[in-house]
Amino acid sequence: MSYEVNSSRVLLAHGDGGLLSREMVRDVFLKYFSNPLLGQLSDAAVFQLKGEKVATTIDAFVVDPIFFPGGDIGKLAVCGTVNDLAVSGARPVYLSASFIIEEGLPIADLERIAAAMAEACAEAGVAIVAGDTKVVPRGHADKIFITTSGVGVVPDGLDLGYHRPEPGDVVIVNGGMGNHGLTVLAAREALGLEGGLKSDCAPLNHTIFQLLDGCPGVKLMRDLTRGGLASAAKEVAESCGMDVHIEEASVPVDREVRGAAEMLGLDPLYLANEGKFLAIVTAGESDRALELLQASPYGKGAVIIGEVRAGKGNVYLQTVLGGTKFLDLLAGAPLPRIC
Amino acid sequence: MSYEVNSSRVLLAHGDGGLLSREMVRDVFLKYFSNPLLGQLSDAAVFQLKGEKVATTIDAFVVDPIFFPGGDIGKLAVCGTVNDLAVSGARPVYLSASFIIEEGLPIADLERIAAAMAEACAEAGVAIVAGDTKVVPRGHADKIFITTSGVGVVPDGLDLGYHRPEPGDVVIVNGGMGNHGLTVLAAREALGLEGGLKSDCAPLNHTIFQLLDGCPGVKLMRDLTRGGLASAAKEVAESCGMDVHIEEASVPVDREVRGAAEMLGLDPLYLANEGKFLAIVTAGESDRALELLQASPYGKGAVIIGEVRAGKGNVYLQTVLGGTKFLDLLAGAPLPRIC
Repeated sequence: MSYEVNSSRVLLAHGDGGLLSREMVRDVFLKYFSNPLLGQLSDAAVFQLKGEKVATTIDAFVVDPIFFPGGDIGKLAVCGTVNDLAVSGARPVYLSASFIIEEGLPIADLERIAAAMAEACAEAGVAIVAGDTKVVPRGHADKIFITTSGVGVVPDGLDLGYHRPEPGDVVIVNGGMGNHGLTVLAAREALGLEGGLKSDCAPLNHTIFQLLDGCPGVKLMRDLTRGGLASAAKEVAESCGMDVHIEEASVPVDREVRGAAEMLGLDPLYLANEGKFLAIVTAGESDRALELLQASPYGKGAVIIGEVRAGKGNVYLQTVLGGTKFLDLLAGAPLPRIC
Repeated sequence: MSYEVNSSRVLLAHGDGGLLSREMVRDVFLKYFSNPLLGQLSDAAVFQLKGEKVATTIDAFVVDPIFFPGGDIGKLAVCGTVNDLAVSGARPVYLSASFIIEEGLPIADLERIAAAMAEACAEAGVAIVAGDTKVVPRGHADKIFITTSGVGVVPDGLDLGYHRPEPGDVVIVNGGMGNHGLTVLAAREALGLEGGLKSDCAPLNHTIFQLLDGCPGVKLMRDLTRGGLASAAKEVAESCGMDVHIEEASVPVDREVRGAAEMLGLDPLYLANEGKFLAIVTAGESDRALELLQASPYGKGAVIIGEVRAGKGNVYLQTVLGGTKFLDLLAGAPLPRIC
């Protein structure tokens, strides 16, 4: 399957973090921008800058609606970039933010968004040091889009990456899957499900560094945003050249998410999170890792969901009913403007 | 004049780089994101990162049309960020890029844009190491918006900034004013003026470092993008707390730009450039600076246009007719989607 065959135009599915996204990145962007750092397609690029190990990342946020239970586009833009740096092992230091605003946006909305960004920055301990604002005529954008970029510093000696996992390592997640994606969808479509649903959007850097500082057996982390746990696990498995086995019964899904997802026919494993990550940890340290995570405000729901085995880059889900199914990248049924 | 009085909504003029832009930055963004680095409102934030002087910057590009004589949105996005770093005294090293794409954009257009970005990166000697792509439904954006962020390294001992200029310093620009802004406007409105007009969009880092390496008397640089020479000069004057005197007859304006600007009632001093900068240089080194610039492909038109004098942050234009007028920030008559 290749988008060139299907379409000579960009489709919504090219932006869903699944198969078509990956094809577009490979066939357009990597074709022209080819370099070893970008080629890793990791959450952030980590490089040496005059002897220091520095990480940088960028993300555009186009979520609709811009305000939703548990957050807004501003909080999301800060947390997304902070988390990309943190899962790459970098302590976030400075952010920059660009705003594309549709003419007519209430100034009060802009203030509310800026205040949420400032609050998230304060919690994460980062500063926005550079910015840019563009205004486009009515109808040329939808309310507001924010792009954030971040710079972080990787502590000496920390080595995370696809080269680290080994058979026998365990896979840990820090809590329930799917809250963000489902909350945004429900808010946008006014499904009347909003009652118990709330985005998990949060800055994870303190939680992650509590884990890293106390548990040297952490080998790799990924945040579980677009495409959800399933897509992240598949990317990890492929990039490591090993299999990831996940026990469906162990994957935490909050009750209200499970109910709403079932009603809508959506799989929480493919729904976006904005405050969740997976960590691959050496088996001997898994108890220690869980203890550290469970002691942190954003890791109370931390559990082991599976393990790494020798293999060829596949993800196997041991289902509740006793079967086994392959998990692949999301293909089709895109959920646009989730982040 | 204050936007709170005029409007509770974001206006196009909030994005034109003039007075309202500055008010929105001050009254919304600085209010919430207040920190000394952002407060400088310079082209890039320069900070110490574990002993190294590093710069970062971000810019959103929403130009309409996305292809125009002399460039496209991709070339613009790379050059804009490279130039912001370079005028801040930083050698650009790594860029990151985020793409917000409207569903339906021809893949061929995306490829053309990516190729132009790669070409500009190769010329500038930088690599795009991180990226992100979002796709929004038809009508939620206009074709494509690109945000680029960059990281650069400031050479040891280089000290540029608003604290450096002194009375008697000269103001130099590297060539004709207004080409980019007028070209984009003419292309968008199909004014039939395109014949001789071409954007000056170019990566200036090699030109700028040729100047910096050979001429230690350079004290401050600014690129002359949104708001043009006049707005940049006003910001420099205010931030330095000195006056800037400009000789109108010395300001270079290409013949075709002058003709078209006159016809449209536009002032080239307020039109955007994407390959022009001003440098404030100690008077004793002005000949050397001109020599270095004129030997560079993007500095052939370099001339002295004025000088710094003791004062209170005003910009005076000595007109061709012998009068003197104040130059202030652009106010009203915004030119949207120029960059």
